[in-house]
Amino acid sequence: MENTIHRKYLKGQYIVQQGDICRFESFVIKGCLKTFYVDNEGQEHVVLFAIENWWTADLGSFLTQKPADYNVQCIEDTEVIQFSSDKMELLYQEIPKLERFFRIIIQKAFVASEKRIVRNFSLPAKERYIEFKKTYPQIEQRVPQYLIASYLGITKEFLSKIRGQIIAEQ
Amino acid sequence: MENTIHRKYLKGQYIVQQGDICRFESFVIKGCLKTFYVDNEGQEHVVLFAIENWWTADLGSFLTQKPADYNVQCIEDTEVIQFSSDKMELLYQEIPKLERFFRIIIQKAFVASEKRIVRNFSLPAKERYIEFKKTYPQIEQRVPQYLIASYLGITKEFLSKIRGQIIAEQ
Repeated sequence: MENTIHRKYLKGQYIVQQGDICRFESFVIKGCLKTFYVDNEGQEHVVLFAIENWWTADLGSFLTQKPADYNVQCIEDTEVIQFSSDKMELLYQEIPKLERFFRIIIQKAFVASEKRIVRNFSLPAKERYIEFKKTYPQIEQRVPQYLIASYLGITKEFLSKIRGQIIAEQ
Repeated sequence: MENTIHRKYLKGQYIVQQGDICRFESFVIKGCLKTFYVDNEGQEHVVLFAIENWWTADLGSFLTQKPADYNVQCIEDTEVIQFSSDKMELLYQEIPKLERFFRIIIQKAFVASEKRIVRNFSLPAKERYIEFKKTYPQIEQRVPQYLIASYLGITKEFLSKIRGQIIAEQ
């Protein structure tokens, strides 16, 4: 298939690097990835994770074909199918239902993203961690704790303290 | 048009109330609205604003037809066209390009939402306020400062201090 690439990445390799243009949307067949941002102080902030059957990209860069704000890096050896912007356009024209499928996926992602903003403002870190475990149990088990801390916007020491509290309460 | 309502609301009235089911997506013809969440301590957290030519709803509730997490309230006298879930389905079937239109709108909204999460983690409040003013100049001028403070996740006193700093620097 033209403009469609079946590709394997090793743990640690990048699908997108901050500053590059994100040329593909990647569907994850196998593996685990993180999308993260490095701020001016060099600190890493995890934006999203992705596992099997999820899509990943720097969507803003993919849509505009401008330099990416984020990095997408493999946390495990990862296998993806990648679709270029041209290919996606072709697919949308050939299969109108795909447009619907992506509209619904992205609406759900948007709702989840808004909920995360509200939780970050209104819930203590401990409740946010419990919510994260409940919502993404598979990710919680596969991803190193310091990345979950970053996703929650707290230090890994603070997450470790929270986990200790939760275990003590059980 | 069946399932489509042209409706006027007064300042202070609600389009959606937390706990109700959001039955419509509303296209704003005139006016200004805020989407907000009230936490268990009774504190209000602004999630989104909407002005002319924007769409507003508790999207999670609209999609699932389950009780809304958020309130959508008019900050000014507001005029909207409201589309029910059934009507939206009909429109998507009659006008396939509408599916595309909404896919693109919501992708952009998702990208903006993710950026907001990253900024909340990585930028000081002052930079976030400057970014907000740049991105949404019309909203910044129309919306009371305490609501902007809530949107930014800071107190109104802190926003006032930041504004003072910015004026002093000019």
